[in-house]
Amino acid sequence: MARVRMSIEHYLARWLPAVEDEMRAIVAAPDLHAFAGLYGMIYYHLGWADADFNPASIPAGKRIRPMLCLLACEAAGGDPEAALPAAAAVELLHNFSLVHDDVEDGSELRRGRPTLWKVWGVPKAINAGDTLLSAAHSAFHRLRDRGVPADRQARAYLRFCQTCARLTHGQHLDLDFESRDGVTVDEYIDMIEGKTAALLAGAAAIGAIIAGSDDDHRFAEFGLKLGLAFQIQDDLLGVWGDPEVTGKPAADDIARRKKSLPVLYGLGNSRELRELYAAPEIDVEKSVELLEQVGAKEYASNMAYDYTQQAMAALDEAAPQGEAGIGLRELATSLLGRTA
Amino acid sequence: MARVRMSIEHYLARWLPAVEDEMRAIVAAPDLHAFAGLYGMIYYHLGWADADFNPASIPAGKRIRPMLCLLACEAAGGDPEAALPAAAAVELLHNFSLVHDDVEDGSELRRGRPTLWKVWGVPKAINAGDTLLSAAHSAFHRLRDRGVPADRQARAYLRFCQTCARLTHGQHLDLDFESRDGVTVDEYIDMIEGKTAALLAGAAAIGAIIAGSDDDHRFAEFGLKLGLAFQIQDDLLGVWGDPEVTGKPAADDIARRKKSLPVLYGLGNSRELRELYAAPEIDVEKSVELLEQVGAKEYASNMAYDYTQQAMAALDEAAPQGEAGIGLRELATSLLGRTA
Repeated sequence: MARVRMSIEHYLARWLPAVEDEMRAIVAAPDLHAFAGLYGMIYYHLGWADADFNPASIPAGKRIRPMLCLLACEAAGGDPEAALPAAAAVELLHNFSLVHDDVEDGSELRRGRPTLWKVWGVPKAINAGDTLLSAAHSAFHRLRDRGVPADRQARAYLRFCQTCARLTHGQHLDLDFESRDGVTVDEYIDMIEGKTAALLAGAAAIGAIIAGSDDDHRFAEFGLKLGLAFQIQDDLLGVWGDPEVTGKPAADDIARRKKSLPVLYGLGNSRELRELYAAPEIDVEKSVELLEQVGAKEYASNMAYDYTQQAMAALDEAAPQGEAGIGLRELATSLLGRTA
Repeated sequence: MARVRMSIEHYLARWLPAVEDEMRAIVAAPDLHAFAGLYGMIYYHLGWADADFNPASIPAGKRIRPMLCLLACEAAGGDPEAALPAAAAVELLHNFSLVHDDVEDGSELRRGRPTLWKVWGVPKAINAGDTLLSAAHSAFHRLRDRGVPADRQARAYLRFCQTCARLTHGQHLDLDFESRDGVTVDEYIDMIEGKTAALLAGAAAIGAIIAGSDDDHRFAEFGLKLGLAFQIQDDLLGVWGDPEVTGKPAADDIARRKKSLPVLYGLGNSRELRELYAAPEIDVEKSVELLEQVGAKEYASNMAYDYTQQAMAALDEAAPQGEAGIGLRELATSLLGRTA
């Protein structure tokens, strides 16, 4: 078979507008001011409105997850059009989790704009997140209108529910880790599997299920390992990322005492680092130096590399078809090769 | 047809254990300590565990909503057994909303026990609520195993999603009202329609849908009007309830400056009351006196009476069958005749 040339940018340009339209249809706000601005808040979070509820078009995330869902559907032999409601659901689920994470972590900025709780207060922000989660679930009844057979609808929806549960488990572990010492690397991997990787795994699996494939577990494995590699790379950038590229201060995760993978490894292998982390003021430069001395950067980099290899091997086993198969590889490569 | 004798207590005794079993199967905690206690928190909230995650059996709510769902199913000619997953979902949805409401309102006690956020902190409580909401949605895939035809599954699930959305709209309005003056009675009714009545409407409608009835809108209307009457009666008890029976201080809602229906009516009709409500310390006794003077108690009582009549008329139109039809009337009567 001749190798089809494609670029992920081309795929994004072709499908992103359809995903956005589907998301808007699912959220279905009759009026941005309806219910005293509840939908305005959601539109604001999704980049579709400003804080006064005037229509806007603000970059709000890379929409990686819906793309993964559509690409997996096509690569498994299906019509991505049929998977649009699920792709939109996955992105809405991701956005629900961001709204609640921001409340739970007390984060004041998201994509350069004040977070929902910062603008409208914690109670309304929690509730707007709940509306988003409900909207995400409601998307699945739209699969029927797209001609997806009943058994695939049911399987896709079950997979989505499992993904939701896994997501909240991961978030719970993350919150739990903040308040205790001695978190192991295994526990950490379990946490990011839920918090980050489960959603990528779910997105890919659901795409394959809608295509009618029995290889959904292979697509899931690809998404899972991709998610793990992605998160560990994020951890690396949080310590060694170039401030000019990431837009964040140097070693921002250290300054915020985040227990990311290199840090956990470092804490387990350096008493000096444990002391620095316990001090009232943290010496960021010295901490980074210690991390490098004990080999934390190398350790995490190796792990990210291994997961990337495993992701690619899982993708090979799934035998993705045509243009979309190449797209999945490109998506993985672009995610893993990023510098911000 | 001979009038079948039944009592709602008898129905509860027969069906409550099955609802509890179904809820446990849906929440499906492999281990109460799993995920660092996430499921333990949920078990605690549902009355199935104490704060140390030891199994317990603590009265945790009247389970009115699942009963309404099962009774509506049977009264519409269906088998309540088939509606068990939906009945459990409705109760889990209700409990999700309680967990988040407690965070949003800063309530420290629920059914005499410390609330989730009070024991485990706000971030974990928000997340545990999310787990409950996800579990509630996941219940619907269990309808298939109960032999519910695919089209009824889809209709029931769509109705559930609409109920979730309506619930969060109502909650948003409630939060919004706290921070502004001049809330009208119409706005208030719109709010309690979402916050209280929509779930009763949804529970009844979903039961009827699973039975295969086309009269689900009549059952919904019954639930909706019952919910409105129920909430207004709650408002009346919040001001005029007997502390010995309610277990709360006299005129507790006034002390907490809650803008319930009689209060809104009073604020709209008494400048003196508006002044009392604006003062740093509220004169509870005087406020109650003013409410009675302007006829707020009569106004709210009449409204509760009217909604009750409308609920019963809607039930008549639904022509509920047999024992369960009588059960629905008894449930309505017991809810509306309560003193606590």
